[in-house]
Amino acid sequence: MLRIYEKTPPVPPEEFVRVEWVSLKEYVADVLSSLKVPREHAEIVADVLVTADLMGIESHGVQRLRRYTVGIQVGSVNPKTEVNIVKETASTALVDGGSGLGQVIAYNAMKIAIEKAGKTGVSAVGVRNSHHFGIAGYYALQAVKRNMIGIVMTNSEALVSYTHTVGRNMGTNPIAVGFPTKNPPPVLFDAATSVVPIGKIEVYAKEGKKIPPGWALSPEGKIEEDPKEVLARKGSVLPLGGLGEDFGGHKGAGLALVVDVLCGVLTGANYGIFVKHTTDKERANVGHFMMVIDVDKISSLDFFLEKIEKYKEYIKSLRRISENAEVWIPGEKAWLTMETRKRIGIPVHKNILKEIKDEGEKLGVEFKVKILKETA
Amino acid sequence: MLRIYEKTPPVPPEEFVRVEWVSLKEYVADVLSSLKVPREHAEIVADVLVTADLMGIESHGVQRLRRYTVGIQVGSVNPKTEVNIVKETASTALVDGGSGLGQVIAYNAMKIAIEKAGKTGVSAVGVRNSHHFGIAGYYALQAVKRNMIGIVMTNSEALVSYTHTVGRNMGTNPIAVGFPTKNPPPVLFDAATSVVPIGKIEVYAKEGKKIPPGWALSPEGKIEEDPKEVLARKGSVLPLGGLGEDFGGHKGAGLALVVDVLCGVLTGANYGIFVKHTTDKERANVGHFMMVIDVDKISSLDFFLEKIEKYKEYIKSLRRISENAEVWIPGEKAWLTMETRKRIGIPVHKNILKEIKDEGEKLGVEFKVKILKETA
Repeated sequence: MLRIYEKTPPVPPEEFVRVEWVSLKEYVADVLSSLKVPREHAEIVADVLVTADLMGIESHGVQRLRRYTVGIQVGSVNPKTEVNIVKETASTALVDGGSGLGQVIAYNAMKIAIEKAGKTGVSAVGVRNSHHFGIAGYYALQAVKRNMIGIVMTNSEALVSYTHTVGRNMGTNPIAVGFPTKNPPPVLFDAATSVVPIGKIEVYAKEGKKIPPGWALSPEGKIEEDPKEVLARKGSVLPLGGLGEDFGGHKGAGLALVVDVLCGVLTGANYGIFVKHTTDKERANVGHFMMVIDVDKISSLDFFLEKIEKYKEYIKSLRRISENAEVWIPGEKAWLTMETRKRIGIPVHKNILKEIKDEGEKLGVEFKVKILKETA
Repeated sequence: MLRIYEKTPPVPPEEFVRVEWVSLKEYVADVLSSLKVPREHAEIVADVLVTADLMGIESHGVQRLRRYTVGIQVGSVNPKTEVNIVKETASTALVDGGSGLGQVIAYNAMKIAIEKAGKTGVSAVGVRNSHHFGIAGYYALQAVKRNMIGIVMTNSEALVSYTHTVGRNMGTNPIAVGFPTKNPPPVLFDAATSVVPIGKIEVYAKEGKKIPPGWALSPEGKIEEDPKEVLARKGSVLPLGGLGEDFGGHKGAGLALVVDVLCGVLTGANYGIFVKHTTDKERANVGHFMMVIDVDKISSLDFFLEKIEKYKEYIKSLRRISENAEVWIPGEKAWLTMETRKRIGIPVHKNILKEIKDEGEKLGVEFKVKILKETA
């Protein structure tokens, strides 16, 4: 029995419509195809975007479609992505994405990583000259489907203030780690190294609510509680652990730095403020870093799959902090949301739906997204 | 010109003495040797412990010596550590530590990881049946000395409450990542995935100060501000990001879980509450997980060493949040403290010095620690 659950329930429901996910994915692929993106590549990008919506990570879903179409139109994104291996060993590769679509580059880099790990047990692939690739967890799950552990990182345009500094000088630099399991859901950790993603601050701004003190700074370095001010005045997000060092802010900032060194410094990509936005005219030169571990080469696959189920049970059985609290395995909320939305449809905000419809119209693409319900 | 700096200044100075670090290390090795630990192994353990003191991580320094001597005496720690490879591929190994000394096991596991990465470019080594190994960063630096990137994790006895739960059910499960640099200091991230280590709460208790709300929980799941209560009633430490999910507590807890799965589930070691303390009669069966990346196999070493210096400069040049704020590279404070203490000596609390002196006396070991100054 599927539990109907949405990590991010659409509020208020009347501002949303429910759309059928496969038709949404097809439409997104059609839009990209119209911009000379090869069909196979368009389908990868569409799958990454719609998977984010399915998982309740709307900030990285189809609302980002324009980021990529504009990126192609201004010329920073090469629609015909070519992934070239610059250097390789039995277990490693350095990949150049030629400023193509980040999703296509990351998807192919992960394929290389999986193949190498299948041979030697573990692999590491660095990627340079890429673009924003959407949700990191998507690529970790590629490895998980092959019963491997996938570790995926990317740097991103600067939005965070490094500890004891002000201004936007560090990316939100997410880390995803996925583990195969015997029974669904797989364990999937996928988190920005900032306290919140900027998308969450955008949601609060839209809803006219204050943000908790400890999420963001003003450009002057004061705690900012007005989300509109953060966005309008280019305030910054704090690292995981918050301001200063008292609650471990230096740990969140340190993790962001580790990701930046692996993705930006090691690969020859950009780092810090030099990472550009997809829609900037300059090449973004985003860097990614991936590692894959073949479970069966270190442990035995059967042993691991049994034991991780026991581990999931252990976590789920821990004593709850209050009666109505729920204990979650990383990735569980996203998985339940995905299963729910595959069945009842994805809630898309009416403004977003109009935006992607208009985008298609401009490009002469027929709007064939199937609306399941005129409200969420 | 060396800058005299101590990450953790000895306060109040009159409660401390300054001791010469090499003689301290020798003495610690002598104590362990007297318990039938082979000399070479005793020197590894002593080096790990004294390096922690040099770096200003006193919680993991010689004050922990008794943890290991008691562990040997109660029989949970095998003094004659044998490290056996259970399974291996070109790039991976699963190592069984035979319940020996964690430091010796981790040191040898890292040697295996370095050798494999030198051949294939990257390696992953899982370790089971180990004990508490001290500071994770020590082993990451083994790789750094070979111009490789070292990633080291361990699980540990449960002290943390997983998100939305109460009680001690998850280790502080640290992660260390070390990068080589052209000029010292190397970049060394080394942090528990909890908001603070338990040692910090012990320091506050000793000083009779309240702890900030957000560090610890009572066994009933209330925010606890009295450090003595946390220790006496077995309260728990919160994950990095704090209570609940508002400030990313689920990210800290998720990272701790990732470490537990890699170290405990994958390797066949214990996890969660099943990880025992070194001094428990039962085998601790702590698990570690290490990865090494050979920089020169992915990038070129020269390119990387130049670029990471630029990156360090970038971080150091960021706009500070206030006039007297200082911006730190991960590992920089520890490195400055180490250089300082190699010169002026390690401040050891008089009670700790007495404790390790008494321990040696009981074992018939001559106390030859050189006291440089009767106060810090």
